[in-house]
Order: sequence, then structure tokens, then C-alpha cells
Amino acid sequence: MYSNNIYKAIKRALVFAFGIVVVTAMISGARAVERVPGPQYDNQGQLKRTDGWRQWVFIGAPLTPNALNDGKAAFPEFHNVYIEPKAFAQYVKTGEFPNGTMIAKELLSVGETVAVSGNGYFQGEFQGLEFAVKDTERFPDEPGGWTYYSFGHALPYTNVAKAFPTEACAACHQAAAAEDMVFIQYYPILGDAKPK
Amino acid sequence: MYSNNIYKAIKRALVFAFGIVVVTAMISGARAVERVPGPQYDNQGQLKRTDGWRQWVFIGAPLTPNALNDGKAAFPEFHNVYIEPKAFAQYVKTGEFPNGTMIAKELLSVGETVAVSGNGYFQGEFQGLEFAVKDTERFPDEPGGWTYYSFGHALPYTNVAKAFPTEACAACHQAAAAEDMVFIQYYPILGDAKPK
Repeated sequence: MYSNNIYKAIKRALVFAFGIVVVTAMISGARAVERVPGPQYDNQGQLKRTDGWRQWVFIGAPLTPNALNDGKAAFPEFHNVYIEPKAFAQYVKTGEFPNGTMIAKELLSVGETVAVSGNGYFQGEFQGLEFAVKDTERFPDEPGGWTYYSFGHALPYTNVAKAFPTEACAACHQAAAAEDMVFIQYYPILGDAKPK
Repeated sequence: MYSNNIYKAIKRALVFAFGIVVVTAMISGARAVERVPGPQYDNQGQLKRTDGWRQWVFIGAPLTPNALNDGKAAFPEFHNVYIEPKAFAQYVKTGEFPNGTMIAKELLSVGETVAVSGNGYFQGEFQGLEFAVKDTERFPDEPGGWTYYSFGHALPYTNVAKAFPTEACAACHQAAAAEDMVFIQYYPILGDAKPK
């Protein structure tokens, strides 16, 4: 009887300790997506171009060429898409895009279409640079906190860019992107990086 | 007359000094391409797979789909091509690929072909990993010192790979690559990174 009480006390203590561990894990889980330093704005609220995007983490290169869209593709260029490394590291850890995430999309024309390897699509000239930025604190009214910017469609790119109106970019991203406004269904590298 | 001699002496001294500077620059130029640490081999001479290539510097994504090659493309997948960062840094500095350069080519199937952005090509599944390695010291008899390896055409990739016979890869690279066995004509990112 006496040993039975001790057993129950130990059991209760273990259940209590387990509860503490679970609650702590939930709280730290909720805090796991830490803001990353990233986007810089000028005093008119325009996004400053952050250089070095070609050394960010490449996530994919979708292509919707004119040849497949009756010569009227909305986006006829290769899209070289990169995510800023600190944001990528948070994504690898948490599976979520932290505030401060910058995704760069550099546009390159379709250049050569015939090579020793066959007929196809090869990257040609630099034709534009666009950024998507997530910041629910700065842009609480934008869908998912994402805003979209263009630094022009020719070299040299502009130094700063105004955010597009919400309907210009966010509408399609909201309707068709698989996850948090990002088309990760077309970025298997992101899918693979996501914690299982 | 006297001042004229001084003038000539100064001129000769300047020409000599200029010569020294030019010769020094030529010597240091010849030494500028420093070997980078990179490829590791097992005791049978097989190349060990170096992980982390998806965080190397992306240089391009050529695509020669089956749809454009009568269903018989030699390379029907997206090729995500990356260069190891220390080799890239040397290339930026010297315009040459140093010994130890590793270039990774990860193959991804064509996945979706219709999206909200139009008809096109979107990356699907991981379908292979190949490396090209430059090492004129280790492989003096291979064209340009380059050797080529495949870590298989399905996940998980193999840990080691044997070099392909020279004729399997090097022949096309030698015949059609714009520079030192690398198809930089299809990699505008490399072209832009090269010192002018």
C-alpha cells in the first residue's frame, strides 16, 4: 500500500514533468520562426536593392516561353529564383518563411535554342530583377505580409523600387501559390529543404 | 646638354621601372590562378560526393526537353548547374577555372507544364547528380584536366563515382564549349562574373 502511493506519486510527477516539457516545446515552437535581417527601405518607403542575390540559395528556374504561349507570354523569360540565405536557414529549421524573407527573381531572355545537347532553351541576356519580401509587421494589410518590387527590365537595375499595388502580383500568388504566397509546387528544392 | 642627359637618364630609369612592373605583373598573373581545395577521392580513385552543392553558386539551368527532340532528348531534364564557391571566387578574380574546380549538375524532371503564369516548364523531381572536376595535376592526360562523374539518376545519390571514359563527356565539351571545356556561352552569369 505504502509502495503503491510512492508509485502513484512518481507517476504524477512524471506526467507533470512531461506536461512542462510539452508546453515549453509548444511555446518555443511558436517562437521558432525568428525574423531575419534583410530588406532595407529608403525614407520614402522604397525598397533598396540588396546586391549579391546571385549568391543566394537558388530554388528554381521556371520558364514560360513565348513559343508555348502564342507569342504573348506574360513572363517569356527564364526566371532564376533565389532566397536570401538567412531566410532559407530559418525555412530549413521551421518550414516557414520568416519576416524579412527576400526572394529574388532575375529574368533572363531565352538565348540560344540549338546546342550540341539538342534543341531547347538556354539562358541569354539579363532582362530584369524583381524581389518579393515578407514582412507581416511592416505590411500587416498585404496578403501574408508579402510585397513585390521591380528593379527594372534592363541593366543597370534601379537602386530602389516601389511596392506594386496588391492586385498586380499578390492576387495570383494568393490564388495559386501552394504555400504562404510562394509557388513551392514548382520549387522542389524548397520542398526538399522543408523539415519533414 | 647636361640637363638633356639627366632627362634621358630619368627616362631610361622610368622605362626600366615600367619594365619591372610589367614583368612582375606577368609573373604574378601567371601565378594568379590558385588551386582551390575541393574534390576528394577514395583509395580506389573514385570521386567522393561533396554535399551542399545546392548552396553553391548557381550558374544556369539549360533545358532540352523531350518535347523539342522527338521524344528522344539526350538530356531531357532541367540541368541545375552550380560552381563550388571557392572556385567561383577564383574565376571572378582571374577569369580562369582553377585546379580543384567542381561544377555540379543536378537533373530535375520537367514537372508541371501549365501554371497560372502560362504554358511552360516547371521543375519536377530530382533525377540525377553529376560533377565535372578540373585538375590538370591529377589528370594531365584528360582534355583541360577535366573529368566527369555521375552519382546516379535517382535519389539517394551514390557516395562515390568513377570518372567517365574521356570520349563519353569530354569529346562534346571539347568540341563545343566556349571556354576551357565549360559551355559558358549558355551561362551568362559566368560571363558577367568574368573580369573585363
